[in-house]
This record gives sequence, structure tokens and C-alpha cells, in this order.
Amino acid sequence: MSDLTHFNEEGRARMVDISDKEITKRTARAISSVEVNEEIYTKIRAGQIGKGDVLQVAQIAGIMAAKNTADIIPMCHPLPLSGVDVAFDWIVKEQTYTLKIEAAVKTTGRTGVEMEALTCASATALTVYDMCKAVDKGMVIGPTYLKEKTGGKSGDFSRESNDR
Amino acid sequence: MSDLTHFNEEGRARMVDISDKEITKRTARAISSVEVNEEIYTKIRAGQIGKGDVLQVAQIAGIMAAKNTADIIPMCHPLPLSGVDVAFDWIVKEQTYTLKIEAAVKTTGRTGVEMEALTCASATALTVYDMCKAVDKGMVIGPTYLKEKTGGKSGDFSRESNDR
Amino acid sequence: MSDLTHFNEEGRARMVDISDKEITKRTARAISSVEVNEEIYTKIRAGQIGKGDVLQVAQIAGIMAAKNTADIIPMCHPLPLSGVDVAFDWIVKEQTYTLKIEAAVKTTGRTGVEMEALTCASATALTVYDMCKAVDKGMVIGPTYLKEKTGGKSGDFSRESNDR
Amino acid sequence: MSDLTHFNEEGRARMVDISDKEITKRTARAISSVEVNEEIYTKIRAGQIGKGDVLQVAQIAGIMAAKNTADIIPMCHPLPLSGVDVAFDWIVKEQTYTLKIEAAVKTTGRTGVEMEALTCASATALTVYDMCKAVDKGMVIGPTYLKEKTGGKSGDFSRESNDR
Amino acid sequence: MSDLTHFNEEGRARMVDISDKEITKRTARAISSVEVNEEIYTKIRAGQIGKGDVLQVAQIAGIMAAKNTADIIPMCHPLPLSGVDVAFDWIVKEQTYTLKIEAAVKTTGRTGVEMEALTCASATALTVYDMCKAVDKGMVIGPTYLKEKTGGKSGDFSRESNDR
Amino acid sequence: MSDLTHFNEEGRARMVDISDKEITKRTARAISSVEVNEEIYTKIRAGQIGKGDVLQVAQIAGIMAAKNTADIIPMCHPLPLSGVDVAFDWIVKEQTYTLKIEAAVKTTGRTGVEMEALTCASATALTVYDMCKAVDKGMVIGPTYLKEKTGGKSGDFSRESNDR
Repeated sequence: MSDLTHFNEEGRARMVDISDKEITKRTARAISSVEVNEEIYTKIRAGQIGKGDVLQVAQIAGIMAAKNTADIIPMCHPLPLSGVDVAFDWIVKEQTYTLKIEAAVKTTGRTGVEMEALTCASATALTVYDMCKAVDKGMVIGPTYLKEKTGGKSGDFSRESNDR
Repeated sequence: MSDLTHFNEEGRARMVDISDKEITKRTARAISSVEVNEEIYTKIRAGQIGKGDVLQVAQIAGIMAAKNTADIIPMCHPLPLSGVDVAFDWIVKEQTYTLKIEAAVKTTGRTGVEMEALTCASATALTVYDMCKAVDKGMVIGPTYLKEKTGGKSGDFSRESNDR
Repeated sequence: MSDLTHFNEEGRARMVDISDKEITKRTARAISSVEVNEEIYTKIRAGQIGKGDVLQVAQIAGIMAAKNTADIIPMCHPLPLSGVDVAFDWIVKEQTYTLKIEAAVKTTGRTGVEMEALTCASATALTVYDMCKAVDKGMVIGPTYLKEKTGGKSGDFSRESNDR
Repeated sequence: MSDLTHFNEEGRARMVDISDKEITKRTARAISSVEVNEEIYTKIRAGQIGKGDVLQVAQIAGIMAAKNTADIIPMCHPLPLSGVDVAFDWIVKEQTYTLKIEAAVKTTGRTGVEMEALTCASATALTVYDMCKAVDKGMVIGPTYLKEKTGGKSGDFSRESNDR
Repeated sequence: MSDLTHFNEEGRARMVDISDKEITKRTARAISSVEVNEEIYTKIRAGQIGKGDVLQVAQIAGIMAAKNTADIIPMCHPLPLSGVDVAFDWIVKEQTYTLKIEAAVKTTGRTGVEMEALTCASATALTVYDMCKAVDKGMVIGPTYLKEKTGGKSGDFSRESNDR
Repeated sequence: MSDLTHFNEEGRARMVDISDKEITKRTARAISSVEVNEEIYTKIRAGQIGKGDVLQVAQIAGIMAAKNTADIIPMCHPLPLSGVDVAFDWIVKEQTYTLKIEAAVKTTGRTGVEMEALTCASATALTVYDMCKAVDKGMVIGPTYLKEKTGGKSGDFSRESNDR
């Protein structure tokens, strides 16, 4: 049965013991997004074509955040990540400009990398906001969610999309 | 005119020079949320009533992330924060259980704390996910956005809500 | 024969080579404490019963510090911790109120986690001090010591208590 | 009246707002100690006279920890330290060998540096333990306490010693 | 008379007290370089023209390292940097391909930013090495030196170049 | 064929996937140096003979930086270092005083420790500069380069010296 396993007997938080879990290959993919206005969309695109690149800074921020996940999330186990990748896609519909972010993380370890993928996607989105906030502070980040995970005893997880 | 001020002449990123900006009091409020299923909602509530407290761990994670914003967001200026607070609210409608997160950050400095508030709210939400993911990995984080800022030359900013 | 193995030939510090040590399960338990006055004792207890919880913040600080031990202690090897737990106990005798802290750390690695347990207990105690210092700055931390370790070539270690 | 000011209305932790506190010079001194056996005492002394120096590594660890206090202690405000110093003294009585550690920290800021001084003294002591634990794991750290503080609205604090 | 001011009376390191130094605007510029072979030169240039950009990753690494200088250099004071910029130039002579790196850092504070500029330039160069080492490990970093500083009581400093 | 493997298809940086690389013992040695004037040379030597020790602080900075390499270099994989050592040598020729720095790093992992050795040597050199810059800011760091590596699929690497 599922349970909030981060809580110990006295109701206080602990980093759960994973010593007896097997070392296996594990992957996770997380999605986030930033909805921007037309001016920001146009400027990021121009920057991407030229030399400046909002997405590049954001991507590097995401990768570094993935490595620091155990510092940011208190009960996360430190994990030696073996690969991190961030991909972008623009979804332009009528007057809305949405930058889709997909973060993929791999490890060979005793626990999964869901938090690393979610933290990577979040830091990437936050950095896009930071790079563009002088133009408009009305950008909206997310929804942010886990798209897929593989490996580990709890089995694989996958969701089609987050249609809202 | 507004511009992507993080890019220097050669199109590469820099931390913009704020030496000539005035030191003033600045505040920012950011919103995030986590949509959970009924089982998680019930367990968090029970923990909140008893001694264990998902929200407490999440809140502390948010406060610590606010302090580390300049480490997470590459072009952010380091700022000596003078106050950080995180508040929660549950919005329960029919079959949906949404934990609203509001992060408030203050400083007296040369630039605003929008990124600190957004990073705080994001880390809080990510930690809620981490604490509860053994129950269900289908939680959805966000939308995450700036609700309000005050202080600084660019003036105040405020948005009613993010109704989507 | 025992020796100060952190020093190299020229008398300068180095991180000793553990490449040839075996990967085994290792645990360590460390003890610390904070002696507080009656007012603090009463307020912490009240907070523990309600929703606010000095011990919860302190415990999270301890767990995060355990993960950062290799950043705090210069010659410590970085270790992928597999579990961290912090427990509390109040010892009230006549006019003295002592909060006992026990930190337990586990890893599967090439070297022990004594420093992680001691750092965890110390950060927990320091955070108790920080949370309560507005009431009284006369609190006393410690003694802090290793209670027990298992695993590794140097064998197990255990001490009954530290009666002083 | 004194109060646990780190707790907000809902009983959850926050970083208290210090925006309205004055910027003044502030100092703090904290004491810790490590009780070692004769073999360790002799070896540290020999190292100090020769080229290797346990105390030097410990001292540097203490100074770096002082700078990282706001990362280690969750509700601590980040402060731009203007000076940190660590001094040692040996107290040898009959069969006990005690290394006294005194950490002194200065800042010009809106809040005091008690936690920085206590964290500095603790990290210094922990590093002494780490450097010498191959010889004996029975060392005892502390008591650790605030000796003195100056500056700020709450006034000066001083204690003669911690005779136990 | 000049002196190694980082050492205290007992010959051990301390973070020198700057409480009485004035808060003024301070700048520093540091130079580093990476000498690469023709294949790496050609590939970086191609990447710079297209979308991939070794220099962009390196530049971001430099900026983030500037912010972390007080964590990397033990006796450095933490400083709230107000601006960081990294510029590149290629010097191609006969068979040698040298990437020149110039880091510029600004603050308004009690001490200079020479170390921040030097650390920024070094991290930028190290990252260029990391990005290209799969092609050739024979790259040479530096010489690395301070080109210029302004502000502060010790006066301005400037050197024409480092012709060796 | 060699390639800039840090770039993904869209020309943006990623942390390359090393999941399928073998876990083997790996070592790397890197060289850096600091050229100082006679006054600094004399004072460092005196400090080394007495109790203060520029080299000791620098060495500790180098070891700690080796452990933080994956935080400083964006695309570096986190690695559990098993040993780090820093050695010094003075080369005095006519009017030039050069402090040679050699950093040696070991791990058992999926990728090499070249960046850890280079980062260690660089941080050591930067710290020497920081400790002595009150005497003279004209010191020159480097050249900094990889001297040797062993282990891993790409084979061993070695260079005689860097005679320029």
C-alpha cells in the first residue's frame, strides 16, 4: 500500500533508507512551459537565430539545477547523474506563444530521477522568465509535470499529456 | 523601450550592471500550486493536523531556495534578502484538490526580488511533489506566476489572478 | 599503527586515497544536545503540539547538512548517502531542560559516515539555537560525540554514553 | 516580551522580516572545544611545530562555514561578513587534553552574527575530529556556546564562561 | 608597508576585518586564454556561427563562478556583485589558435573584485577546456592575470599586457 | 572520429550520457603555477618555515574545488572522488620566482577526472594570488594544463611539459 514514506514514526521528516534497493538504470522526463507575449516570442526567436540565445542560458541553468536537486529538495537522495538533456519547442496558437520545455535525466542508482527531471524543467523555465522579465512580467510558467519514468521497483510511469 | 537587457553586444549573456540603480525597499509575491489526488490531499491534511507536515518541509525548502536564487538562475544578482514567507491554501472543488502556494520576499537593494519569489514558490511546489510521489506521480505543478511586485524604477506590478 | 593519515609527506593536508577500500554498508550514529531555559522548553513543547515545530526545522537542517558534509569538512570524501534520520528526546531534571539529538546516517561506500552523522547532529543543534535565540542566547550546545559506527575495515565502534 | 519570532501565524517557519532594522556594526564570539586523548594531542602539537597543521585546516573550515551559515541554518539571513577569525588554546589538566576554539565574526548589517560565530566554531571542531579520527573516535566536541555579542537593538550579551 | 595581511598573529589564516573600509564603486578586469589546435578552433567557430556555442556555455560558467568566488577562495569576502561581463577574442598566428578571455566585474562594496574577475576568467577557460577535451586534451590555459582594477584605498592598478 | 560531444542536435549544450561507459579506476594530474616577485617569494617561504602557510590555505582551496568541479563546470558529471593531492615546488631562476602546482585526482567511475585536476590546480593558484595580492597584484597564473591521465576508453594521455 502506498504511504507518505518520508515521515518517520514521530511525524517528522527523514531521508528514507534506500540501502536495500537495487542499483538499476533509471530515466525520467518532465515537462514545463513558459507562456510569453508576442514581443518576447519575437525577440527570443531573433536571439536564437543570431548569437544571443535565451534558450541556451535557460538550458544550462536546467542542467546545473538537475545536478543540485539534492541541495534544493530537502529529502532527495544525492545521485550521480549520468546524463541530462533539455529540449524546447514553440507552440504558437492565435495570440498565445508557449515555449514547451522537456527535461530528460538518466542515472544508474538506487532511486529514481523524477525530482531531478522536474527540478531541471523548473529551473529552465524560471531562467527563461528571468532573461525576459524586462520586457514583460506577465509570463506564466507551467503546468509542470512528470511525463515518464523508467526503472526501479515501482515500475514505469507515463502520461500522454496534460490537457487543460 | 523594453529590451532583452541580459544580452551584450555580441549576443552573449551577461549579468547586467546595476551599479547606478538606487537602493530601495523591494517586495515580490509569486504564486504556484500543486494539484493532487484525493488520497494525497487526505494524507497531507492528516499529517498537518498531527505532527508530520508536508507543508512545513516544503516551506523550508522554499525559503532556502529563495536564498539560493542567484546560484540557480545564472544571470540573477545576489541579493541580501530581508524576509521570506510562504503561505498555503487548499482549494477543493468537486474531485480536484489544489494546494495554492504564495511566496513573499523582501529586500532592500538595487534590483527586484521577482526571481526570488518565483524560485521560492517553485521549490516549495517541487518539495510537495517529492514528499508525496510515493503515493501518486500524477501531481501537476503550477501555473506559477508573479502576482505582485513593488519598489524599483520599473514601478509596481500586479495581476488579479491567473484564470485558466 | 594509527597515524594522522590526512597529512602528506610535506606536512600539508590531502584527501586520502580510498580507491582500494571495499564498498560496504556503513552506518553511524552521533549525539548532540541543546540545554535551554524553561521558557524555551515550554514554547518548543507548545509549538510541537500545535503546528509550529522548532524540531521540524532543526531536523530538516540536520538532514540537509548531512548531505553537504563534504562541502563543510575540507578533507571529507563525497558520499552518496542512502538514509538520514534525526530523533529527539527531552531530558528534564530539576531546573535543566535538555533536548537530546540523535542523528543516524547510512551509506554503501568506500568510507564511513561518522562525519555525516556528527555534522547532521551539529546542524540540528545549531538550528534549534537559531530558532530560539530571540528568547534567550544562553543556550548551550553539546557535548557532541559519536555514539556508534558499523562497517568498514577499522571495525565497529560504540560508546555507552558521555556522562559528564 | 520575548517570543519565538521565527513562526508565522499558521505555526510554520518563515525568515523574519528585518527590513526595518538598522544597519549597524555587529560582532559575536562563540566558543567550542574538542577533548582528545594524549596520542592525538601529541600528534597535533608535533604537526603544529612541524609543517602539517590540523588547526590550520580546521580554522579554514570554520571561516568557510561562517560564510555559508545562511545555507546551513534554514531561517538565517544572508549577511556580508566583514571579518572572521578563529583562535585556539590548549587546556591540559591531568589526563585530559582539551583544544579550546574561539570564533570571532564581524559584520555591518541588519541582524547579528551569533549564528555565524557558532557555526564557525562548530565546523572548526568537526574538522579537528575529522582530521584525527583515524587515531581515536572517542573525541568529544563542545560544549559550544555564545560568549559575547555586540550591536543591534537587543543589546550586548556576554557570559563569563561555561563551567560544567 | 605591504604585508601578508591574511595571517593573524599565530601564523594562521583569517578573513581580514574590512569593517572600517569605505563602501565605494570598484571594478576589476582579468585576462585568461585557451590555446587550442586547429580542429577545435574550426569547430568552435562553426558552432558560434550556427546555434551551438562553446563560448556561451563558458561565459555562463564564468559569470556563475564570479558569484561563487567567496565559496571557492577561502579568505575572500562575500560581495554583492553589481555586474559581470565576459568577452572573447580569437588571436590566430601561424599554427597557433588562442582564445582570449576578458572578464569584467563591478561592485559597490568594502573590498575589491580582483578575485571575482580572476575566478570568472579561470572558470570560463576551464569550461572551454571541458567542452572541447573530447577532441584534444593538449589545450593550454592561461597565462591568467589581472589587467586592471579601480576603486578602493590601494588605488588603481593597470598593466599593458603579459608579453611572454 | 572526435567530435564536440557536448552539443545535441539543436546545437544546444547537454550533459552527455555516460550510462554505458564502464566503471574503472581513473586518475589525472594537472599543472598550474604562480609567478611572484621576490618580496612575495620571501614572505611565503618565511611563512612556510614559521607558522603561517599560504600554501596550506591554497592547497585546501584546491581540494575543496576539486570536490565542487561539477558545480563550477556546467557540463561536468558529478563524480565521487576517491583521492585528491596537491604538491608544490619552487623554481627560482635569476629574477623570477615561480611556484609550481601539481594536482592529482583519483576516482572509480564512468568518466575521467581531468576537469577535477585542472579545477583543483586553478583554485590552488587563485588562492595563492588572493593570499598575496596585498603585496603585489602583478602575479601571473599559469600556464595551466593536463599533465597526465589514466583509465577510461579514450586511453592514457601524457605530456612531457609545457615549454614556452
